Amino acid sequence: MGKKYIGVDIGGTNLKAGLVDEDGALLATAKTPVHWVGAEEFVKTLAILSKEAAEKAGVTWADICAVGMGVPGGVDTKAGKVLYTCNIPLSGLPVAELFRRELDVPVYLENDANCAALGEYCAGAGKGCESLIVITLGTGIGGGVILNGKVLHGVNGAAGEVGHMVIEPEGEACPCGRRGCWEQYSSATALARLTREAMAEHPESALWAQCGGVLEKIGGRSAFEAARGGDAAAQAVCDKYLSYLGQGIVNLINIFQPEMLCIGGGVSNESDAALLYPLRAIVERERFGQYCPVKTRIVKAQLGNDAGIIGAALLGAVNS
Amino acid sequence: MGKKYIGVDIGGTNLKAGLVDEDGALLATAKTPVHWVGAEEFVKTLAILSKEAAEKAGVTWADICAVGMGVPGGVDTKAGKVLYTCNIPLSGLPVAELFRRELDVPVYLENDANCAALGEYCAGAGKGCESLIVITLGTGIGGGVILNGKVLHGVNGAAGEVGHMVIEPEGEACPCGRRGCWEQYSSATALARLTREAMAEHPESALWAQCGGVLEKIGGRSAFEAARGGDAAAQAVCDKYLSYLGQGIVNLINIFQPEMLCIGGGVSNESDAALLYPLRAIVERERFGQYCPVKTRIVKAQLGNDAGIIGAALLGAVNS
Repeated sequence: MGKKYIGVDIGGTNLKAGLVDEDGALLATAKTPVHWVGAEEFVKTLAILSKEAAEKAGVTWADICAVGMGVPGGVDTKAGKVLYTCNIPLSGLPVAELFRRELDVPVYLENDANCAALGEYCAGAGKGCESLIVITLGTGIGGGVILNGKVLHGVNGAAGEVGHMVIEPEGEACPCGRRGCWEQYSSATALARLTREAMAEHPESALWAQCGGVLEKIGGRSAFEAARGGDAAAQAVCDKYLSYLGQGIVNLINIFQPEMLCIGGGVSNESDAALLYPLRAIVERERFGQYCPVKTRIVKAQLGNDAGIIGAALLGAVNS
Repeated sequence: MGKKYIGVDIGGTNLKAGLVDEDGALLATAKTPVHWVGAEEFVKTLAILSKEAAEKAGVTWADICAVGMGVPGGVDTKAGKVLYTCNIPLSGLPVAELFRRELDVPVYLENDANCAALGEYCAGAGKGCESLIVITLGTGIGGGVILNGKVLHGVNGAAGEVGHMVIEPEGEACPCGRRGCWEQYSSATALARLTREAMAEHPESALWAQCGGVLEKIGGRSAFEAARGGDAAAQAVCDKYLSYLGQGIVNLINIFQPEMLCIGGGVSNESDAALLYPLRAIVERERFGQYCPVKTRIVKAQLGNDAGIIGAALLGAVNS
């Protein structure tokens, strides 16, 4: 029997645990909504979920090599402590130590977006790469960077926040406190906003019929869908969005020159013709040292929403 | 006697070699202008310079542990080959192999800005750090990134081109082919341009008297100098410049969360009150996870123009 690991995904609304084998296959999961009553109770819930996931897969707890946790915030990976989080009051909490009072196994903490990157690196699109950047285009932009097989976590566990690179000075306000963050122009949420803005200027657009005049129904897919149907205003939105997205991606490539850049999240479900090919063309035109034949491959993520939990579990494998 | 290394700096106009001891002290240098007649002649010149630097320091060639070279372009560090350069036709050249035909020692190649970062890391401001970013504000913006003691060179040796991160969509044209690169807003050259632009709008500015009405005399120091004298237009230029500079620095911090970010180049000679303190205030206000107590230190570089040659020499020390 190969080695088994537990991955825990600490979300703002749900807590999930999954049993993962050494090849990165997710064999069973357990899930519960977040009900915050206190730190100790919270960590107990994580332990219960972890055992539940192991049991579902028919694995006894003694066979679990390690537990890894993805935290929505900054962590001190060495001390196993949370440095800060925004949605749940975990700041300063020695989660690893508390967890080991419940279940005595090695416990590793990492930022959740970094976990997703590690998942793709070990078991998804990035298998066999030396260096990989994963960006996840959803509500925001998640980012994780793997270099020489190691997660880049920075001095405070919060590295890889590529969505909070300002690409438009004095641009849209971002919850992080800055203005003009990439996330405000290239997340799925941003794409929906750009689409609604274009509709206001284009009463003739097919987007109006598509949403039945209900602007709230406009999401990250609307513009791509209407553009496929031949709507000019929607196509212009897609072009603008791709230009912002490409701008940030080329920035990252010029900084890291990674072997691979991998795009995940809802937006990555669009067809290659609509998303990946135009992006590759932008990168080819704009990347630094474009006469250099060795260059970053740009691909789609493969693990979907499981990337985070798989990567968290494999923290045990890469750190041991 | 401690170990001795040779560092070579391949510039667009001058070639320099220096003898460096294992502590990063530069003990002797030799220099010659670039006269391109062919690849083999070029590498021979590098070998002659290297021997000259050793001789000047009274070190026999047999005591040289390694030669490191800083190349203005991308390199294949493993193969010791230049991938591309802009100013000198070295693309595709197996420089390490050719050099060893002249002098049989281990030869290491690295991008020149990365060498400068390594110099600061080993022997300058970054001594003792785990992770360090060095930005050099001169004609352009040079960048080098050190993580866990290793130079980030990327898949093609061209990583760390932080100056070619677009921070202003559709902004100023950059020789790299993009528009709105950070380098076009935060290099010393950019500061001079911003200063001249402000002068056109402010005939009352003291900057006019300062340069005797000769716009060509306006450089990267002019605005800071006039601002110290109380000129409002010049102060506004400085504020704008610091805002662009801070924007790029915060981007890098949000991406890397390095232990230290080190600022070199001509602009870094300005007083702390004019440069470093306002920058730190911008970073403190804008960095991601600002409630996290663990944060990047922002300091000035210490080695000046010698950083590149010292770092090139120490490639031998960090790679052996």
